[in-house]
Amino acid sequence: MDFSTKFNAHLRRVESGLGTWLPPADARPGTIHAAMRYSVEAGGKRIRPVIVLAAAELLDPAGRRDPVPAAVAVECLHTYSLIHDDLPCMDDDDLRRGRPTLHRAFDEATALLAGDALLTHALGLVVTAYAVEPALAVALAADMADAAGSRRLIGGQVEDLAAEGRTDLSAGDLEFIHLNKTAAMLELSFSLGARIGGATEAERNALVRTGRELGLAFQIVDDVLDATADSAVLGKTAGKDAQAGKVTSVSLYGIDASRRRAAVHAAAARESLADVRGGDPFLAALIDSLTDRKR
Amino acid sequence: MDFSTKFNAHLRRVESGLGTWLPPADARPGTIHAAMRYSVEAGGKRIRPVIVLAAAELLDPAGRRDPVPAAVAVECLHTYSLIHDDLPCMDDDDLRRGRPTLHRAFDEATALLAGDALLTHALGLVVTAYAVEPALAVALAADMADAAGSRRLIGGQVEDLAAEGRTDLSAGDLEFIHLNKTAAMLELSFSLGARIGGATEAERNALVRTGRELGLAFQIVDDVLDATADSAVLGKTAGKDAQAGKVTSVSLYGIDASRRRAAVHAAAARESLADVRGGDPFLAALIDSLTDRKR
Repeated sequence: MDFSTKFNAHLRRVESGLGTWLPPADARPGTIHAAMRYSVEAGGKRIRPVIVLAAAELLDPAGRRDPVPAAVAVECLHTYSLIHDDLPCMDDDDLRRGRPTLHRAFDEATALLAGDALLTHALGLVVTAYAVEPALAVALAADMADAAGSRRLIGGQVEDLAAEGRTDLSAGDLEFIHLNKTAAMLELSFSLGARIGGATEAERNALVRTGRELGLAFQIVDDVLDATADSAVLGKTAGKDAQAGKVTSVSLYGIDASRRRAAVHAAAARESLADVRGGDPFLAALIDSLTDRKR
Repeated sequence: MDFSTKFNAHLRRVESGLGTWLPPADARPGTIHAAMRYSVEAGGKRIRPVIVLAAAELLDPAGRRDPVPAAVAVECLHTYSLIHDDLPCMDDDDLRRGRPTLHRAFDEATALLAGDALLTHALGLVVTAYAVEPALAVALAADMADAAGSRRLIGGQVEDLAAEGRTDLSAGDLEFIHLNKTAAMLELSFSLGARIGGATEAERNALVRTGRELGLAFQIVDDVLDATADSAVLGKTAGKDAQAGKVTSVSLYGIDASRRRAAVHAAAARESLADVRGGDPFLAALIDSLTDRKR
């Protein structure tokens, strides 16, 4: 099966899982459940839930456990973070994926509460969907709370906000942001898939490292594209980082060195993946597609 | 031991538990951890965590399991909901417990993220602190996600916001708000304590009902006090509900009938408590103090 056929097969399971595992849109109160679905159903690439499914399948091709609830939970977590990031007190964005952001389509209070609800739902979903294997459910929830917590996802967000307008950001500061704002959710996706697939601790650690290196490569590629790509190709305004005087990989290392750094992280991701049962062609191709992209 | 001695004994365990079980204030990034502690350490009556401890003790006087992490988790959940409620897009409050609200003391983005972090921490804390008994940890986390989720705490908040300025609110609508905005966290506190104390399902259900009836009584008493008490006695501006044209128990039923309704719910709370191993003098006195208060 080629990459895009396989990706679409995973995607269909994710989309159908979102329909199944989110609270119904007509549950009371209707507003909040409509708002949650508005943002989750806005689409996006579904990279994180697809990684959950692919990592679980690598370790357990027979699919003895259903990875879909965990995949849905990761997407809920990702969506919550986007909703709160878009709020006026954060990035103040009007558009997300070509549609009005949630606080524009509804209102700020609803967006705040829908984000809260998706975060709560994500954690509730893993503990209830895997409750028949409580040790697994606990491990999945602990992974999620750690990756989404104040030292990781939220911590990265805090330092990213604090970095705005600062030109003295060190390489270590920038890495803290990339590791936590970007890599944490990818590490989490691999970790959940690994646990559901029945990975050994060594296998899970290798996959978590795959997620970390992929996250670092992904973020550097983002910085390079912002500095080099055409807005038309990128599908969003290019050159925003330089205009904002933002410290990025490009401003710290230059374009060529950034490209080399991204390639090193991408290679490390592929290598770490190969350590797990010889690797997986689909996940290897996914790493390539995310780190060798033009937009 | 009299009521206030016992209350203070529980309170000391809660305060010391908060110090132990919150992330340290100097964890990176410092801002977010300082903000989390600013709000949690602002005080408040700690009713919910005290209920967790007292309910656990009623069922398991020997204290074989430590209820403190669950008590801390409930307080984190309660604090998160206050932080987000105070935000400009919600109630827009400048003061909480006599101190500047978190978004006033820090800024809006930090308050938003600190609320998110406390919610995440609450769920992460129960799964990690009780991980040696994974079935218990799963049950505690599922209770929390349910009580804090879009159909309960958040749902109550959504309908309360939507009720502002509406004069056609029905008795059922008002009960939905009271049940979810107020009672859900009290039910949760009893449920967590019950599970940690090793309650049977019948005992836990009786205690959850105690929390529900207490929550309903508490909220009606709040409405009555707003309509009848002196601002000086109340310690906050009285008469705010009538001024805002808000539908409350008093506007729906009048003061006398509201007092009777509160008394009925308080009696039901005490009765349901008495069904559990003959009840508990401390918890009975706590119910009285919360439903027979002057402020």
